[in-house]
Parts: sequence; C-alpha cells; structure tokens
Amino acid sequence: MYNLFEIDEWKIIERSFDPLKQKQAESIFSIGNGCFGQRANFEETFSGDSLPGSYVGGVYYPDKTRVGWWKNGYPEYFAKVLNACNWIGINVEIEGVQIDLATSQVLSFYRELNMKEGTLKRLFKLRLADGKELEIESLRFCSMHNEDVAAISYSLTPINFSGIVRLTSYLNGRVTNHDANYDEFFWDEVSRDINSSVGMVCAKTKKTDFYVATAMCSSFSDQNGLLDLEVKLNECELYVENSFGHALNQGEKYTLHKYISIASSVKYPSSELVDKSISCVKNSASLGFDALLHNHIGAWERIWDAADIVIDGDSAAQQGIRFNIFHLYQTYTGKNAKLNIGPKGFTGEKYGGATYWDTEAYCLPFYLKTADPQIARQLLIYRYHHLDKAIENAEKLGFKNGAALYPMVTMNGEECHNEWEITFEEIHRNGAIAFGIYNYVRHTGNRDYLKKYGFPVILGIARFWSQRFNWSDSKKAYVMLGVTGPNEYENNVNNNWYTNYIARWCIEYCLEIKEEVGEVHDLIISEEELATFRNIVKNVYLPELEGTNIFLQQDGFMDKEQLSASDLPLNERPINQHWSWDRILRSIFIKQADVLQGLYLFEEHFDLETIRENFDFYEPKTVHESSLSPCVHAILAAKLGKVDKAYELYLRTSRLDLDDYNHEADEGLHITSMAGTWMSLVEGMAGVRITESSLNVNPIIPKSWSCYTFQIRYQNNPLLIAVTQTNTELKNLGDSDLSVYLNEQLYTLKANESITV
Amino acid sequence: MYNLFEIDEWKIIERSFDPLKQKQAESIFSIGNGCFGQRANFEETFSGDSLPGSYVGGVYYPDKTRVGWWKNGYPEYFAKVLNACNWIGINVEIEGVQIDLATSQVLSFYRELNMKEGTLKRLFKLRLADGKELEIESLRFCSMHNEDVAAISYSLTPINFSGIVRLTSYLNGRVTNHDANYDEFFWDEVSRDINSSVGMVCAKTKKTDFYVATAMCSSFSDQNGLLDLEVKLNECELYVENSFGHALNQGEKYTLHKYISIASSVKYPSSELVDKSISCVKNSASLGFDALLHNHIGAWERIWDAADIVIDGDSAAQQGIRFNIFHLYQTYTGKNAKLNIGPKGFTGEKYGGATYWDTEAYCLPFYLKTADPQIARQLLIYRYHHLDKAIENAEKLGFKNGAALYPMVTMNGEECHNEWEITFEEIHRNGAIAFGIYNYVRHTGNRDYLKKYGFPVILGIARFWSQRFNWSDSKKAYVMLGVTGPNEYENNVNNNWYTNYIARWCIEYCLEIKEEVGEVHDLIISEEELATFRNIVKNVYLPELEGTNIFLQQDGFMDKEQLSASDLPLNERPINQHWSWDRILRSIFIKQADVLQGLYLFEEHFDLETIRENFDFYEPKTVHESSLSPCVHAILAAKLGKVDKAYELYLRTSRLDLDDYNHEADEGLHITSMAGTWMSLVEGMAGVRITESSLNVNPIIPKSWSCYTFQIRYQNNPLLIAVTQTNTELKNLGDSDLSVYLNEQLYTLKANESITV
Repeated sequence: MYNLFEIDEWKIIERSFDPLKQKQAESIFSIGNGCFGQRANFEETFSGDSLPGSYVGGVYYPDKTRVGWWKNGYPEYFAKVLNACNWIGINVEIEGVQIDLATSQVLSFYRELNMKEGTLKRLFKLRLADGKELEIESLRFCSMHNEDVAAISYSLTPINFSGIVRLTSYLNGRVTNHDANYDEFFWDEVSRDINSSVGMVCAKTKKTDFYVATAMCSSFSDQNGLLDLEVKLNECELYVENSFGHALNQGEKYTLHKYISIASSVKYPSSELVDKSISCVKNSASLGFDALLHNHIGAWERIWDAADIVIDGDSAAQQGIRFNIFHLYQTYTGKNAKLNIGPKGFTGEKYGGATYWDTEAYCLPFYLKTADPQIARQLLIYRYHHLDKAIENAEKLGFKNGAALYPMVTMNGEECHNEWEITFEEIHRNGAIAFGIYNYVRHTGNRDYLKKYGFPVILGIARFWSQRFNWSDSKKAYVMLGVTGPNEYENNVNNNWYTNYIARWCIEYCLEIKEEVGEVHDLIISEEELATFRNIVKNVYLPELEGTNIFLQQDGFMDKEQLSASDLPLNERPINQHWSWDRILRSIFIKQADVLQGLYLFEEHFDLETIRENFDFYEPKTVHESSLSPCVHAILAAKLGKVDKAYELYLRTSRLDLDDYNHEADEGLHITSMAGTWMSLVEGMAGVRITESSLNVNPIIPKSWSCYTFQIRYQNNPLLIAVTQTNTELKNLGDSDLSVYLNEQLYTLKANESITV
Repeated sequence: MYNLFEIDEWKIIERSFDPLKQKQAESIFSIGNGCFGQRANFEETFSGDSLPGSYVGGVYYPDKTRVGWWKNGYPEYFAKVLNACNWIGINVEIEGVQIDLATSQVLSFYRELNMKEGTLKRLFKLRLADGKELEIESLRFCSMHNEDVAAISYSLTPINFSGIVRLTSYLNGRVTNHDANYDEFFWDEVSRDINSSVGMVCAKTKKTDFYVATAMCSSFSDQNGLLDLEVKLNECELYVENSFGHALNQGEKYTLHKYISIASSVKYPSSELVDKSISCVKNSASLGFDALLHNHIGAWERIWDAADIVIDGDSAAQQGIRFNIFHLYQTYTGKNAKLNIGPKGFTGEKYGGATYWDTEAYCLPFYLKTADPQIARQLLIYRYHHLDKAIENAEKLGFKNGAALYPMVTMNGEECHNEWEITFEEIHRNGAIAFGIYNYVRHTGNRDYLKKYGFPVILGIARFWSQRFNWSDSKKAYVMLGVTGPNEYENNVNNNWYTNYIARWCIEYCLEIKEEVGEVHDLIISEEELATFRNIVKNVYLPELEGTNIFLQQDGFMDKEQLSASDLPLNERPINQHWSWDRILRSIFIKQADVLQGLYLFEEHFDLETIRENFDFYEPKTVHESSLSPCVHAILAAKLGKVDKAYELYLRTSRLDLDDYNHEADEGLHITSMAGTWMSLVEGMAGVRITESSLNVNPIIPKSWSCYTFQIRYQNNPLLIAVTQTNTELKNLGDSDLSVYLNEQLYTLKANESITV
C-alpha cells in the first residue's frame, strides 16, 4: 500500500511540498478542539489550489435546498457547515514582495502533525525571485485546555539578506462556502474593532442569526524579546489587520505570536461575545504562547492516558489508530450538548449537517469506552433536546400521537436531507438512537438517565415504529413497507430484516422499561396502545431463507442474480463510480453491513452458528463502499475466529484517509468511520463486549503484531487490556472490584490487580 | 362544476377582464400551427401578471441539470422548451401615454378563441387616466396554411377624443425562460435588420446552435386605405421596431396589420433563414391579411372535416372535446419528423422535453384515426431516427449488443430526465414505443413500414428487455427487478405486472415479425440470442392473486393496507399535495392505470370476466392524479357496460384545463392527455377497436346526450359513426368496401353506403 505521508507512531510528516497534495494535506493535518477547527491552510497568502476551512462548532447556514423534482415533505433547506472567519492569516512581504509558496521556489518543506501534543508545525525555506532566501517556522494549535483559544507562533529568519519585512496579521470574515448551492454569501458584519493591541470581527450568519466574535492579539519579537514597533491598522467590512514593518538582520530569527479567541452564540449570549473574545485574547497574550501550549499539551496527555491504543510491531497500524483517535477527540469533547459529530468534523464542508446515525452506531461506543461517561451522555442529551423536533418531523410525514422520527441529517433537530429514499425511508436510524440509550445504560449502569431522559425518547421512537408497521392480511404478520436499510444500495424495499428487527426490539424495550419507569413521566400511554405494542412484538414478519439460518436482507432478495463481489471486474469497482444507479439497486451487491449490522448489535440473541452462516452468506456479497462497513464485518470475523479476514477488514478502515484510498481526502476526513476503526480493534481484535450483565474479553491478535494495549471503561472503572501472541493481561486501574470474563472464564480483579492468562 | 369561461360549442369566450385569470387565459387561448405557437399574451404592453410565451417547435436549450444528489447515469442537462422572440408586440401611446390594461380602466373586455377558424380575438374599451376612451380590436392567428406565417390585425378607435397616437410594432428577442435553472440567458444575436417596410431579428441559441429568424412587416391604415406615414426606426441588440405616429380622429377606426414570418434551422439551412423570413413576410404583406386568414380558415376546415366530434345535447361536453382536438392539431400536424408532442405543446414552458411515452400511448391512436396515416408515420419515424441514441442510452446503463432504451423525456433522442426512479426505472415506456409500431401497422395495414423501419426499433427494444429480465432461481422464472410502472406512486418495485407483460409481448412480437422480415436487414441476430428470447417468452413471471383472475400490480402488493380511494378524507386529496412521498409509496393508492393499462392495450388477450375482476379490484384504489389516467378507466368501464362510470371518468378529462380542475392551467395545458379524452370518447363511448384483423364498434351513449357523431379512418378509409339513444349509424365515406363489426355483427359497407342499427 502506498503511504501518502511518512510513517511515524505519533506524527504525520510531510517532507516536501507537493501542490497536488495540498488539499489532501489540508484535511489530514487539520487541527481542532471540539469547539472549533481549522484545516491546514497556510498562514501566509497562497495562490495555489486550496480549500480554506475554518469551522465553528454548531454554526450552520440553511442553504436553500437544490433538487430536481420536489417531493412533499422535503425540507426547505440543507444545513451547511459554515466556513467562518479566517483567523490564521499572516501576510508576509519582503521588501514589498509578498511571499507565496505557489510562486516562490521552495528549497525545503517540512510539515508535521504532532498527535501527541495536538500541534501543527511547518518549517520551510524559500528562495524569492530576486534570490533572497528565508526560513519560516510556524506552530499552531487549537487549545484543548481553553476551548475558546488558539495560538500561532510564526518565525522568520532571513538567510542571505537583511531587509525590510512586513508581517500583516489579520482576521478576515469575508469567506464563502465552496459548496454553497446558490453562491450566496452567508455572513453579515455585526461590529469590528482594531487597535494596536487587539483586533476583533463580530459577524452574524444570515437567517440563522449565529453570532461569532473572533479576536486576535499579535506581537512581534526578536531573540531579545518583544519589539515595540509602530503597528499599522487597516480595516474594512468583516476585516481587520495589524501590520508590523521592521528591518530584519540576516541570520536572526523574528517571531510573530498571534493569539486568537473565538466566542460564539452556540455557547455564550450574543451580547457578551465581543467582550468575551477580547478579554480572553488579552489573557492569552499575557499568559504567553509557551504557557498556553503547555496547558494544551497537558490536556491532550489526559486524553491519551485513557484513549490511546499501543500497537507494537506495526508502525503503520499504530499511526493509523492514533490518527483516528486524535481526530475523534479534535471533533468532539462532549463539553457542549448542542454539538455533535459531523461526518467531516472540522476538516471540510462536505455533507453539511452535524449529526447522522453514525453518532449512535459508531461514535457513542468509542466515547463510552474511552472517556468519562459524561461525554457520551452529552450525545444522548443532544437527541433528548431534539425530541420535539423529531415528533414534528414524524407529524409532517403523517404520524401522530407523539411518534418521533429523528432526522437522517440534522444540525438543530430538523431534517435537512432531501433524497426521498433516504430522508423518508432510511428510518432504521431511529432504531440506532434507541439502541444508543440502551448501550449507554449497559456501559454505565446509569438507570436514572433511562428514567428521566431515555424513556421519553424511546417511547416516541416505539410509537413511530408501531405506526410504521402495517398488518398484512396476506402474510398474517406486521410488515414494514418502503424502507431503505443501512445498505443504501437498496431503496424502497419491503421488510428489510434489520429495520424490522431493530424496530421490534425498540417496541419491546419500551414495554420493558415502562415497567421500570413506572409513573415518573406524565406521558399518557393508553392500554390500547400497549396492547398494540405487544401485538406487534409478537407478530413482526422477519424474512428468512427457508431451510437455513439465513435472515434475508429484504423481501425478494433471492430473486436477484446470485453473484459474489469477487465476480466483479476490477475496472468496474467501486461500482458506485461505474454503474448506473438502477443497476446497483437490482444487483445483489451490498454497500455496507445490513443484516450483519443487526447481528452485530444483537449478537447475544443469536448462536455462533447462525452468525457464521449469515456472515458467510453476506460477506462475499458486500463491496464495502461505505467507510462504515468494514468495521462491522471485522468485528464479526474476529468473533468467528477468522483472524486474517478480520485483519484485512481492519486495514481497510484504519488508514482510509491517511492513505486516501478513495481519493476524496481533499474534501475532508471520514470522522465518524474513525470510530468504526477503533471498534474493529477493541470489539474486533480484543473481543470486548459489554452486555447488560457482564464485561467480556475474547482477544485475537494478527500475526504481524507483537502486542497491543489499551484501556476501556466499564461502569466508570478503567481496565487495561494488553494482548500479545501468547497471552492477555488485564489490569484493573480503578478503585473498585471488577468482574470480567476473559475467554468465557470469569475473573474478579481488585483495585490495581492484574492477571495474565 | 364551475366553468371558467363561457360555454359555446365552437368558441372559448371571456367577457370581462380578470387580471387573476390572465395566466390561465394565456394558456387556454393559446394559438399555434404545429410549427410554432404563442400564448395569449397581449400585443400591447402589460405590466400585470403574465407568462410571456412564444415557442418555436424543436428549438430547445440544454439547461444544466439541477439535482440534490447526483447519481451515475444522470444526463448533464435538461432540454428546456425555449421562449423565443416576442413577435406579437405592439406598443400603443396616446399623446405620449402608454396604454396598459393593468393600469387603465377597462370599460369592457371580450376575448374569444374561435376553434373552428383558429383565431384569437380581443375587443376592449379603455378609459385612460385623463378620461380619454378608446376601443381596441385585435385578431391574430398562426397560419395552418403556411406554417411559417402569422398575422395580427390591430385596430384602434378613439371614442371621445381626437389626438396623436403612436403605434410601435416590434420584435423582441431579449426573452428569458421563467423556469431557467440558473437564470441564464439562452439567445445570442446573429443579425438584425430594420427599414421602413421590414424588420428582422435572427438569433441563435447558446450551446445548441438553433437559428431562428423572425421577420415582420407592418402597415397602418384607416378606413380609406393604407396611410403613408413616416416610419421611425429603432433597434438594439435582438430588438427592432417600426413606429407609426398619426393624428387620429374621434370615432374613426385605424388598423395596424403586422405580418410575421418565422424560419428556423429545425426546418431550413441556417444560412437561408434571413432571406427566407424576409421574402416570406413580404409575400404575406402583399397577399394581405384577409387572404391569409381565408387560407388559414380553409386549412382548419379540412382538419375539422376529418377530426370533429359532434355531441348533441351537452354543450359543455361539445366545447370540451373540440377544445382538446383543437389544441392537439395546434401542437402537432406531422409535417416535420423532428417535431413531437410536448406535454404542454406551445402553451407553456413547464416540463421541458418534447417527447414522453404519452406520444405513443395516447397521441398516436388519435392521429391514426383522425388524419392521414402519413402524420402518425412521422411520429414513428421520429423514434426510428433516435434509435442510435436509444442504444447509446442503454449502453450507459450497462446494456450491450444493440439493446435500446428510449428516454423518458427527450428533445433529440438523448435522455433529459433526472430522477433515478423514473429515468432509469420507468422503462415500460420502451414497450409503448414498440406497441406504437404494432398499432400503426394494424391501423394502416402498412407492413412495408414494419420491415424497413419498425423491425430495427423493435429488435433494439426486445434486446433491452431480454437483458433486463434476470433468471430467479428462487421463482424458477424470469423476473424484472427495480422498475417503476405507469403508476408512479410506486418506485423501484419488482415484477410490475404491466412492465413484465409488455416486455414479454415485445420479445414475442420481435420473434414473430423476424420471420416476416426475413433477411431484409443486415442486423445479425444469433441463434443463441433467439433461443434466449424464446426461453424468456416461455418463462416470464407474472404476479397473480391466487384463487382469482387478478393480476398483481407488483410483488408484495397484497402486503399493503387494503383501502379504497373512498376511504380518503376529502381534505387529503389529491394525496400528492397532502402526503409525504413515502406515505404515498407504501399506500395502496394508484396514480394512474397500471395493470389496467395492460388490459387496455392487450384487451384481446383477456376474457371479459378477467377484465371486469381486475377493473373492480383496481378502479376503487385509483386516485387518478395523473391527467392520463381516467381515459383508460373510462374505456374499460364502457367496455364493461358501466355507462355511468364511463361518463363520470370521461367528464374528469374532457374539461380538465378548460375548467382548470387542478389549478395549474396558468403553466400551460395538458396537451397529451387531450388525446386521452378523445380516446375515452371514441374507444370508450363508441367502443371503436381496430385489431389486426377487424374494425369493431360497440357503442354506448350517456343519458344526457342525444347523439354523437364522428369519423375515423381505418386502413385509410373514412367511416362516419353516429350514435343516438336508440340506434347507431355507420357510413362508409371512402372509395372501397369496408367491413365492420357493429355490436359483434359483421357488416360490409360499399362506398358511400350507410346502415343504421
């Protein structure tokens, strides 16, 4: 496999400047802190191909929907992740000539993303047209310690000349989205301020009225300390700058420190943003770059302590898994219940919307096992806050009595997707949201959450399912017509096994916890409704292949031409780039785990033989053209003892973006599928399972690895798991006793106790 | 039922000016001649709500496709019917004040579409702000005699004043499309010319390079004859004008005659258009308005002679059926094989594309029975010319070996629709095109056409079907997965009975005529392919409801909630305006005849009892939310002797636009469904059937009619049919003997002979 960038266990390293890789690199070297994020665009002016991207969590714009043929029920708009004020900008002029990597001669170039410390560094030498050579080093980070803060250290050394240099540090809010449907400009200025110490731009989004104040504080120093220069000011609408002119001496290093604070109305009252951002940026400046950096690194250290996975013997795998964990924590830290995990995080603007079912199905298990349960809880509360909107959404589609349909894609609880076969029919997402609550409870044991916040959501979802099933006289069972399962290479099918199964489970779970919840809620559930629930649970139709244990993906599945993915010519793959949509639809090929997604979620309901039979039936038909697919297959393969298959599937996901398999990293990274990679290691290789009653570990290890080590949290107790070719070590890092099944054998570990088996 | 306009057997009449009805009226009072057409926009400047529309047959623009989510195989563009040069414009200034019906006081207003003569007339009195009153009378037509010609007579009488009037006659090519996706301007000027006798604008469409030259010749006269006035000229890009100023006397009538010629590269070489249009308009002017009008009326007389339907005892029905016949002939006259019948004809720009399966399924039977067979033949030749494009289209979707898939919507043979469930899956259209050939042959007996032009088309279509079926191991039969039937309220279904049936018929018909065609064509058909064809014909799966004669619309149809349209609350109808798309899809409700469409086309294959059972099963489930639906049900109802039902369904179609049932006449008329109305009378009420071996008449008559009379052509022999409450008269108007089954009884009529039974 070709590696785009150098392999290093903790770093992503680029050693030469390749303008053709710039947009990929901008995505891969992105930094963020869960509150805002920034693509690895250059500080200095760059006229080459680039996708500028600075994103503030939760700030979106309702871009008018573009469709060919309108369908009733389509949302009017598509919530776009919004490109916000450019805060990295530093323009450099050497004796009046602006430097630009696209037009200068780049003598050397080094770019490094330090995942341990969460910093982006560049070091490069340029030769200008007139022969002047200079070296520039920049280091920047979005603080994990104070999530309103970012900082840049930008140093410049004249190599073979002395002369006048002008460094202009600016904020530019006149930015657009690359993917705007109607080329609209999304921001209005609210106010701006510029003086010799602080610059600030406060802007507001059109229509959605999000306010964002961005403040900067810039200082210029040489090796002897701060230079007291005359600062030139400049400003225009949505733009402010501080400009420093100085005569530099050959061989001496000069540094511009740029401190940034970003305050948005997602977090603070709009009226306070200007003051907040200015006082915060002043504090940062007085604290200084090194102290800020120190705090930032400390915060990352605490994250890595709990979330790191160490793989010995396979540097590429090691780098891959850390890259995934790093970007997940850059995207979401659980501090604000209004935020969620967009498919591209803060690394690109594609897709729009922050929240897909990816959150519950893939990201939630990651945060549940690697972080304080409070973080996972925020993801659940997010959906709890959107319950009213989900009920409205279901009403629009003709449902009633509090039935809730969560949107396929959302920013604020409203649906913003508009393909009928997805928007209206890919409703299994509702099941994943209910399952997320169940999953949270079994990981944390927090039944109080279930009562207060979980039940209303589960009831709304169960009501939706109970209305979405209809009785078939012909089958003498409840059927569900016109759905799209997780395998989006089928649309508008009847009786998708996965959807019917998870829907039935939701209703059943609702009935079960209703007993527990008792009269706590003022939700009125009639006896008649309960009877309907029970009746449905007893009579749901689940398609099966007669004479086998195989669950059929949907009605009519066996009418398809029975082929394997291995029958496909290589030049026709991926089929979604080569085949017309109808051909894909009527083929047997599966985009992503569908029946197997169900067997994964509800593993305990099935014996190993049934899982094996279905895996052997579906895996050869699966083309894994979704980044979310291989991980589920990897987990099941591992469970079935298919170590090579599990490893092959793991590899498909772990370096997906890093090696840009699908040639789309330029648009941003696949953030949510990164959690899938993590799952395929922890749940796949290590066989970690948390059920309602127990913690289980059933590890395997690929031949090429000597050892892998990580921690998980179970009911808020950290457990270290280290797997080698010969044994497995478990160590209870918490304060209370921990019972764990290792290879089906129960062990109870006291605080700090470890065993090796 | 509320009638928008006055009932008259030959005219549409409006007696007062209602600005709110203006856009509806603009559609309904449209005129055209099969070569170009014009909405009933006012000649004089009008600042009120209006949809200007002047369309030249075959001139389109490839407007860039707008979709939310791109699917492989979508066409890059959507062919738009193009608004072309405004040729009706006459600006009127009374002593410097421009008249405008939106701002003046309208004292009286009369508008009349004379369907017998094909003219649009207006007569109105205005009072201007300063109290001046004047009367204006205009008459215009698009010549049916010379299809490059139009003419306007525009008269003005000062009622209570004498004064200076300026009449400006202009051509304005700076027009846009209301529905342009990206607000583009579609025309470039090629040349223009203006002198005191002739004005001309030659424009060319961007991208498609269609050239259209529009020339005008204007003259101003009083009751004593032509006035020799100084003509002011004016011009700018795409615009020319002749302006006449004159002192008018109170009570005297002055007339501007404006002659128009339109020459397009759809018909003539581009280089000749300017000369052609100028010489043609000069000829028209020298011939004079009255002579042009006389020739035009004569041409309409010949059309009505063959195509009229006289209904005694029901003026509304009489007006309705003539309105439909009138607009069909205004849209298509069969003179140019590059033209076809757009769903809105020349009455609006909506939908784009000229050709749907409507042409073969609805319009072809109309022209076959009412006009020279040469006209229907042009419609067939149109598809023959597009065969290569249909093969390319199928190749794009992965088919091979000369398989042809005709587009859902086209202008030039290329697909220009982009909804996957339609574009890729509503493939039954291919069957209608093959059936059209079969239908032409049985009407005309022209087997020579079949050999030369019919067979290659049928073979391409049969090849498509043979590849589109796949063998189902599970059903032990050939199945067809992922289609949309005529009932577009189902998408991506398996084994749509209608599609499977017509596909099997196509393959069978291909095998049958291959014997007849023999070695005429150099199309190589392998024995293996023929064997596949035969194998498929023998083993096609056709879903049925066990224990009945009911054919199931598709797999899984009986899993739906079994409801009737009468169960729907009135405030939820039409469901396509009230229900979300997924709800419509999973409901049992049928948009338009689907299984019944098959029983209609292949009536001879089924006994009456089977037809009745299916009609009784499907009609209650059908909501008829397509204008193409009620006619098919009306025909079957009539066949089953359900006179009241047939009449109810007939009424639904015959005045659809005239009374604007669906509140959309402002966008243009439903031209193709007008042919369905005609069918529901001729094939429904009168029970006319032309099979391969015979002509059959089995009439019924609604209670409220005393008599209806019309002609049809059978193997180029005209036959008069008159049906009263008590008897039916048949009269052979042709030169040769005619055998006809009347109520299953065979009669042979010699030339000019008639019988009354």
